[in-house]
Amino acid sequence: MDQERRDRVRRALAEAKLDALVCRLAENVVLLSGYYPQIGASLCLFPADGEPVLLMPRMENELADRGFVADRRLYDCWQNRYPPPMESLARLLRQAIEEKGLRGGAVGYEGSFETIAPNQLSGEPTGVGAPTIALIREAVGGDRLVDAADLLYQLRACKTPTELARIGIANEVAAIGLRAFKEHSVEGATEAAVSAAVEGAIRREGCGYKGARFAFAWGQVTAGPATSENWGYPVSSARKLQRGDFVVVELGVVVDGYWADVTRTVTVGPASDRQREVYELVKRAQAASLAAARPGVRAEEVDAVGRRIIAEGGYGENFVHHTGHGIGFRYHEPIPFVAPGSGHTLEEGHVHSIEPGIYVQGLGGCRLEDNCAVLAEGGRYLAEVDIPLD
Amino acid sequence: MDQERRDRVRRALAEAKLDALVCRLAENVVLLSGYYPQIGASLCLFPADGEPVLLMPRMENELADRGFVADRRLYDCWQNRYPPPMESLARLLRQAIEEKGLRGGAVGYEGSFETIAPNQLSGEPTGVGAPTIALIREAVGGDRLVDAADLLYQLRACKTPTELARIGIANEVAAIGLRAFKEHSVEGATEAAVSAAVEGAIRREGCGYKGARFAFAWGQVTAGPATSENWGYPVSSARKLQRGDFVVVELGVVVDGYWADVTRTVTVGPASDRQREVYELVKRAQAASLAAARPGVRAEEVDAVGRRIIAEGGYGENFVHHTGHGIGFRYHEPIPFVAPGSGHTLEEGHVHSIEPGIYVQGLGGCRLEDNCAVLAEGGRYLAEVDIPLD
Repeated sequence: MDQERRDRVRRALAEAKLDALVCRLAENVVLLSGYYPQIGASLCLFPADGEPVLLMPRMENELADRGFVADRRLYDCWQNRYPPPMESLARLLRQAIEEKGLRGGAVGYEGSFETIAPNQLSGEPTGVGAPTIALIREAVGGDRLVDAADLLYQLRACKTPTELARIGIANEVAAIGLRAFKEHSVEGATEAAVSAAVEGAIRREGCGYKGARFAFAWGQVTAGPATSENWGYPVSSARKLQRGDFVVVELGVVVDGYWADVTRTVTVGPASDRQREVYELVKRAQAASLAAARPGVRAEEVDAVGRRIIAEGGYGENFVHHTGHGIGFRYHEPIPFVAPGSGHTLEEGHVHSIEPGIYVQGLGGCRLEDNCAVLAEGGRYLAEVDIPLD
Repeated sequence: MDQERRDRVRRALAEAKLDALVCRLAENVVLLSGYYPQIGASLCLFPADGEPVLLMPRMENELADRGFVADRRLYDCWQNRYPPPMESLARLLRQAIEEKGLRGGAVGYEGSFETIAPNQLSGEPTGVGAPTIALIREAVGGDRLVDAADLLYQLRACKTPTELARIGIANEVAAIGLRAFKEHSVEGATEAAVSAAVEGAIRREGCGYKGARFAFAWGQVTAGPATSENWGYPVSSARKLQRGDFVVVELGVVVDGYWADVTRTVTVGPASDRQREVYELVKRAQAASLAAARPGVRAEEVDAVGRRIIAEGGYGENFVHHTGHGIGFRYHEPIPFVAPGSGHTLEEGHVHSIEPGIYVQGLGGCRLEDNCAVLAEGGRYLAEVDIPLD
């Protein structure tokens, strides 16, 4: 059991005057149990008093062995002779609610999650809509169901040491992909082929890495002048890399439910003076933001120190987006948001990206991104990986 | 414009006495517009009278060029100077609702979708929760919002000729992955490495295939005796393929928003007599179900003809799951369900999997799966690809 996490959840429930949480989304099941669901038909019931319970498919029991919850109520599914998962979940949840004395209680559920972390079966992820909410309402009874999205986001913002270690592994696995990116970004390769190489390296080598059970990656590789525009929706295409291109990989990685989000930029062949100038500015901005990150600092200050360097270098208008966002239980988490006007203050245990970028029409885009853990002694990247520009 | 699709949507809305649909999920935006959203922050407003409208990020406009909807209201996002997507969507939807005279109307929304098809950014898909429903409610006003999940599922069940052609391309791209599966299923390769090869081949060669813009694959490869149990939640592991193993790939593929779902089984080295016996039975069962599929036939009959062959071969107890499910706008669609007790009758334009399997403890599992289009003249696989057992 991750005792630290259990204690924090209990405290948060007590403060919010909630008797329990019932979560289904992969990101919150991972938070509450350390288990990363595969088909997305698992529930975690976490009472303010007493131990958490997992209601889950029997076939995924081996996956839950990687987590912290001992009390698992298993159901069978998919075979013709078994009922659909929702029927079994309804039955098991009613029993557990009854047994824990939670009938009529104040129970938090996932009402306002729309952008979600997929379960392992990310080709067909499961969100929370009317059926799950009705199922919880019926099991709990009464009318004290509460949308706990904000509470969950706040709980997730500060990672425990156990969680930091797991997010660290995701970052190390991401580094495997970054090296493959550098190796495969050669003249004539298509963007899609480089993406395939990045994702494949992570799939092959991430699975089993330091005991990881499941590793999966989304690597969007884009190249050439279009990278000055398409950073917000990078989609690898069949375009071939050309000598002189900037090549950018936007890489999301999940390892057993914990996420990394990293970016590198390289050139095909030797960089031009202008490309090198831009790259060095971004690198200096990133280092300055990292140096500024520590508990108690305002997130907008971490943004500002990097932004100032880019502005002084003459590219202030070209760094158009935030410096960073939270990360760990999902590709992007809302806390802390490291950007102009953010109201967040960094706390020990926060994990956020630092990803300054410069986008110049005609030249292309250059962004560098790593994931910073906010520790008592300051900000530290969760993996160190040096990928040269050219 | 896919006129046939537009006419069907209008008829269905009229019959349901709905004035419009407002959809956000990738699977329904693809249905209503032929455009596959990338970041998942697009809405399609489809009125019973008049033309559909897309509200979407400006940066994805090139992706919408692949669809049928000309009227696109674009918004800017992600840069520090722009508001969050939900604010822009709220503003644009209010305007469009006003302009189309839909204030206070009966409007269908996606209330009961939980298992969803991800948008292109499948590492962080977007579902529909309280915020989107509140946004629609506010834009429309009144209290005539209707959960349109059933209507949408029914609309989706019969594909138009345009849609069949696109799902056909997804099946052809899936065949690329099946050939890579055969080639890489060799002694000593890990399950994860074979998955990487399958997914990578599709990523590399699917992008650009017959003009495809975006291809992505999930290939779960499992091998050995465990395949008799883990078919319901296949997760590729670091286990190495051994001589004599059954090796199974469960493969989901999306090409520009249209889905294929196929499976093949091979052996590492020569098959044993028992493996060949099981394989041939599954193959005959699959062929019999295909031959039975045509408009007007009950789905449970299509299931029964294949099931009978497996039972007569002595493995009736080992074919534990359904024969098939709908497919096209998602990895799995509910109509038609081809299984014992299904109440569905096949209709022209249905697309469903045919995937009998035999699972024997100690020996492993063997399943074959292709996607059958129900045409006037009978059932036809959307791609023909012969992968020998050994």
